[in-house]
Amino acid sequence: MYAESALDRHPIDVSGEAAPAGAIPAPPAAAAPAPRDLRRVPIHPDHWYPLAWSRELKAGRALGVRFAGDPIVLVRTATGKVFALEDRCAHRQVPLHAGVVDGESIRCCYHGWTYDCSGRCIDVPYLGKERLPNGVRAYPCEERAGLIFVFPGNPALADPQALPAFASVADKQYKTRRLGREVKCHYSFMHENLMDMNHQFLHRKQMGMMRARSLGRRRGEDFVEVDYVFERERGKQPVGEALVFGKDGGQNNKDVMTVRTSYPYQTLQIRSGSGTLVMDLWITYVPLDAAQRTNRTFGLLSIRRPGVPFALDLAWPLLVWFTERIFKEDREIVEMEQAAHDSQGEDRNHEVFPVIKDLRDLLRERGARTVIPIQPVAAGQP
Amino acid sequence: MYAESALDRHPIDVSGEAAPAGAIPAPPAAAAPAPRDLRRVPIHPDHWYPLAWSRELKAGRALGVRFAGDPIVLVRTATGKVFALEDRCAHRQVPLHAGVVDGESIRCCYHGWTYDCSGRCIDVPYLGKERLPNGVRAYPCEERAGLIFVFPGNPALADPQALPAFASVADKQYKTRRLGREVKCHYSFMHENLMDMNHQFLHRKQMGMMRARSLGRRRGEDFVEVDYVFERERGKQPVGEALVFGKDGGQNNKDVMTVRTSYPYQTLQIRSGSGTLVMDLWITYVPLDAAQRTNRTFGLLSIRRPGVPFALDLAWPLLVWFTERIFKEDREIVEMEQAAHDSQGEDRNHEVFPVIKDLRDLLRERGARTVIPIQPVAAGQP
Amino acid sequence: MYAESALDRHPIDVSGEAAPAGAIPAPPAAAAPAPRDLRRVPIHPDHWYPLAWSRELKAGRALGVRFAGDPIVLVRTATGKVFALEDRCAHRQVPLHAGVVDGESIRCCYHGWTYDCSGRCIDVPYLGKERLPNGVRAYPCEERAGLIFVFPGNPALADPQALPAFASVADKQYKTRRLGREVKCHYSFMHENLMDMNHQFLHRKQMGMMRARSLGRRRGEDFVEVDYVFERERGKQPVGEALVFGKDGGQNNKDVMTVRTSYPYQTLQIRSGSGTLVMDLWITYVPLDAAQRTNRTFGLLSIRRPGVPFALDLAWPLLVWFTERIFKEDREIVEMEQAAHDSQGEDRNHEVFPVIKDLRDLLRERGARTVIPIQPVAAGQP
Repeated sequence: MYAESALDRHPIDVSGEAAPAGAIPAPPAAAAPAPRDLRRVPIHPDHWYPLAWSRELKAGRALGVRFAGDPIVLVRTATGKVFALEDRCAHRQVPLHAGVVDGESIRCCYHGWTYDCSGRCIDVPYLGKERLPNGVRAYPCEERAGLIFVFPGNPALADPQALPAFASVADKQYKTRRLGREVKCHYSFMHENLMDMNHQFLHRKQMGMMRARSLGRRRGEDFVEVDYVFERERGKQPVGEALVFGKDGGQNNKDVMTVRTSYPYQTLQIRSGSGTLVMDLWITYVPLDAAQRTNRTFGLLSIRRPGVPFALDLAWPLLVWFTERIFKEDREIVEMEQAAHDSQGEDRNHEVFPVIKDLRDLLRERGARTVIPIQPVAAGQP
Repeated sequence: MYAESALDRHPIDVSGEAAPAGAIPAPPAAAAPAPRDLRRVPIHPDHWYPLAWSRELKAGRALGVRFAGDPIVLVRTATGKVFALEDRCAHRQVPLHAGVVDGESIRCCYHGWTYDCSGRCIDVPYLGKERLPNGVRAYPCEERAGLIFVFPGNPALADPQALPAFASVADKQYKTRRLGREVKCHYSFMHENLMDMNHQFLHRKQMGMMRARSLGRRRGEDFVEVDYVFERERGKQPVGEALVFGKDGGQNNKDVMTVRTSYPYQTLQIRSGSGTLVMDLWITYVPLDAAQRTNRTFGLLSIRRPGVPFALDLAWPLLVWFTERIFKEDREIVEMEQAAHDSQGEDRNHEVFPVIKDLRDLLRERGARTVIPIQPVAAGQP
Repeated sequence: MYAESALDRHPIDVSGEAAPAGAIPAPPAAAAPAPRDLRRVPIHPDHWYPLAWSRELKAGRALGVRFAGDPIVLVRTATGKVFALEDRCAHRQVPLHAGVVDGESIRCCYHGWTYDCSGRCIDVPYLGKERLPNGVRAYPCEERAGLIFVFPGNPALADPQALPAFASVADKQYKTRRLGREVKCHYSFMHENLMDMNHQFLHRKQMGMMRARSLGRRRGEDFVEVDYVFERERGKQPVGEALVFGKDGGQNNKDVMTVRTSYPYQTLQIRSGSGTLVMDLWITYVPLDAAQRTNRTFGLLSIRRPGVPFALDLAWPLLVWFTERIFKEDREIVEMEQAAHDSQGEDRNHEVFPVIKDLRDLLRERGARTVIPIQPVAAGQP
C-alpha cells in the first residue's frame, strides 16, 4: 500500500516517487535555516490577476475592486473599452468608482475632476486647462474568457502573452462553469488545499470514502505538479461526483488527476484511461486586503460533454450543487486554518506530504520579497 | 471666466481675488516646512460645544453624551436646572447617566454614591458624612436656542458671552429647522465640504448643474470666509432648491452666499440682491470619540418667511426632504474621504482652491496643539 | 448606625470588625507601593475550572471550549468516557472539535489525523504507523455535579481531591438551579460584585430598599469571607426575593449571609437564625479569551426545600425569573465597569469598603504572576 511503501528518507516525509526527466529535484526540507512564515508572504504583483468577471462591468459604468489593499477602478466606456486606474481621485482621494463615466473618461463625483484611460487629469471644472494637476496611476488591463485581468506590478513587465490560454473554455466540446467566492484566508491555504488530495476525508459526505494515491510529482522553477489515482475504500460513488469526475471504475479506476500550481494560477485536470481530458479546472486566488487575509476566488471549471447530446446540460444543476457543497467545505476548513494562524501569530504547519512541502517552497520563492506586517493579536480585542 | 482668469501665481492655485481691507493675507502655501496632518489635529476644547438638543434631556433625567472621547453626563433636575459632570462615578467609574436624579443631585445606580451640580460627593449610603470621598469633575454648562452647550476645556476660560448669538433663530421673520446626524469623519472634512462650493457637482441630481464663482475671500485670526455667486449651467432650478435658496435669476442670479468658519463654528448665509438675509445656517461638528473620527453635527437652518403667510410652512416638508438629501450626499462623501485617510495613514489632499487652503491653515492653527495618536492600520485587521 | 460606627482608622475605610481567631489580619492598604492593575492579573491556571455543563457534551461527540484563549476540545466517547485535548490538530491546527469521534479517539475532519485520550497521534491515513508525528497536549479532566472540569495549568498539580465538594447539590433536601451566562468583563469584577452587598441599591426594583450590615470579615491565605445581616429600609419584601432568601423578619431579620471567595471559586450561603443552611450558591467565572475580558459563569444555586412538599417546585419559575433579573442587572453593571477600564486603560477603582480591599489583594496575590498585555485603545478604532 502507498502509505507504507512511499515514505522517503526524511523523517515523516511521504515521497519516493521517481523524479521525472526535466523536473528540478525538490531540495531537502531541512536546507532552509529559518524559512519565513508562508502566511506572511505577499503574492507577487508582477502577474496578471483577474479582478472581476466581465459581466460585472456594464458599458458606461465603473466598478471598484481591490488587489492586496490597493483600490482599483475598472471602467467600461460606452464604446466597450475597458481600462483600470487607481481608485482615488488625485484631489481628495475619494473613490473614482463613485463617479460618472463620461465619454472615454471618468469624472469624480465630488468636484468633477476628470481622468482619461491613461490616468491623466483632463479637466477640473473650476481650473484652467493649462494648470491641470497630476493624474492617477493607470494599470495594464486585458479582458479574456469573461474575466478582466489587471497587472498590478511593474507595468513594463505586463506582457499580454503571459495571460492564460483557456483552451477548454473556448472549446465547444466542453461546458464551462464560472465559480468564485470570497474566502477569508491567505491564498497559500487555497493552493495547499487543492493540491493535497489526502483531504478527501473532508468531503466524505459528498464523495464517500476515497483514497488518493500519488503517482509522482514534478517541480520546475515556477511550478509544482502531482498526479493522483483514486480508490474507493467503501460504498458507492455518489451521483454528483460521477458527473464532475466521470464514473469511476470502482477498485479499478484508471483516471489520472493532475494538480498543478503554475505560479500564481492553479489547475486540476482529469484524463481518462484513454488520455482524453474530461475535466479541466483553472482557478486563482486574488488577495483583496493589504494583509492578504481575504482572497477572491475566480475559477473556470470545464467539463467535457459526453456522447449523449444535452446530457450534461440536464445534469448541470446537480453539478452546480455538488461543486458548491465541495467549495463550501473547503472554504470553511481553510478559514479555520487562517483563524488558527491569526490566533497563534505564526505558521505551525507540520507538513508530512512531500508535494505540499514543494508547493510551500514554491509559493515562498515566487512570492514578493516583502513581509506582510501582521499586527500581534491584541489582548483586549475580540 | 473665473476658472481661467482667477489663477494666482502659485502652481495650481486658484485665487487672485483682491484681499479686502482688514483681512490677513494668506501666507504662501510653501512657507510651512512640514505642516502636521490636519486630520490628526484635535479640535480645541476651549470653546462652547453643543452636546445635546434641549428636547433630548427631560426634567428629572440624565443623558450620557461624549466630547472627543470624554464621557459627560447632562442632568436636568426636577426644577429644570441643567448641569454637566464627568460621566464616571468616582467609586467604580460606571456611568452616572445610568443612575437616578434625586432632587438637585444624581445618585450612581451601583452603590448609590451621590453628587451635586458641582461634582461634589454628598452621600455614600454606607459611609459617614465626615469621610466622604472626592467627587467628579464638573463642566460649565449653558442652554441656548434649544441646544445644551458645554465648555470641555479650561473652565476658567468659559465665558458665556462667547456663546453664539442665534439672531435669526430668535427672529419671528424666520422659520428654523434643527438638523443633525452622526458623521464618521474628522470635523475638518465637514468645514472643507461646506466652504468649497465647487462641490456642487456632487449635488447635481438635487440642484442641477450649478457653477459657483467666488467673489472674494477674507481671513482673520479666527475666521475664514468667502463669497459666492452661482450660475446655472443648464436645465431649470429644482423646486426644493428654490425653497431653500430662493428662486434664482437663471443666468442673472444676484444672490450672494457667504460661507464662514468662525472657529469652531460654521455659518452659511444668503443675501438677496437687495441685501436681505434670506437664509441663515449655523452649524458645528462635535467630535464624539477620542480619535475624533466621528462627529455629531448640530445645525440650525433659518429661512426667511416670504410675503405670503404660511407659504413656507406648507413647503416645509419638501424643504426637509431636500436638506436631508443634500446632507446625505455630503455625509457619504466626507466619510469616503475619511476612509481614504484611514487606509493611506496620512492626508494626501491636493488642494488647488485658495479659500480651502486658508481654511486648512486656520483649522490647523486654531486646533489643539496635541496630535491624535492614530494606530497604523494593521494588516490582519479588516 | 453601621456606616458611622464601623469606620476603621484608615482614611475612608469601613472596617472595625474584630478579626476572628485563625484569620490572617488584613495588611494595611498602604503597604503595597504600586500594586499591579487587578484587571490585568490573569487567573491562575493551576486550579480546576468548569469548561462546560455535562449536558452540553453528548456521547460520541466533541465540544470546542476555551480557557483564557486556549482552545480545548472536550470529547465524550461512545462508552461515556470524557477527555480533553488541545483543540488544534498537530498537522494544520484546525479545530479537532470539527472532527469525528471514532471509538475512543478523535479524528481530524481535514486529513483524518487521529488522536487518543492522551493526545497521542495514533493514525495518519496516508502515513505508515511507524512514522506517526507527535500528537497534541492533553488536559486532566473530571466530571462532577453536572460540570466538566479541566485543569489548564501544570498537570502534575492536578489533584482530583481539590475539586469542590458540592454537598448541597447532592443533598435531596435541596433543589439546585444551574445558572450561567457569558459576561464581558474580567473575572475580578464578578467577585467584587457578589461580595460587596452594599450594591443592593442596584437591585432596588427587585428587592426593595435593603441595607446590608457587615458583621465581620475573615481572611486566610486563599480566601476572604464576610458575614452580613440585612435590614429593610422601607417597603415590603418582594415575593421573588422571599423565595430565594426566605421570608425576612422585617426590621428583626436574623438570617446571616456569608459571602466567600475561596480562590478561584465563590460561595454565598444564607443561614437562618437557627443555623440551618437555607441557600447555598457555588459560582465561578472562567475567562474565555486571552485578554480575560469575557468570562463564562457557572453557578449552582441550591435552595433548601420548605416543609410543604412541592412548594418549592411550584415556586420555581418565579425563582428562575427573579434570579435571571438580578443576574442581568449585575451583568450590565460589571460590563460597564469593564468598559470604563478599557476606555481609561487602567483601574481607577476608589475602594472604601475593607472587605473588598481584602478581596482585591487576594485576587492579586493568588492570580498568575504574568500581566495581561492590553493593547492601548487605538485612536481610529471604534
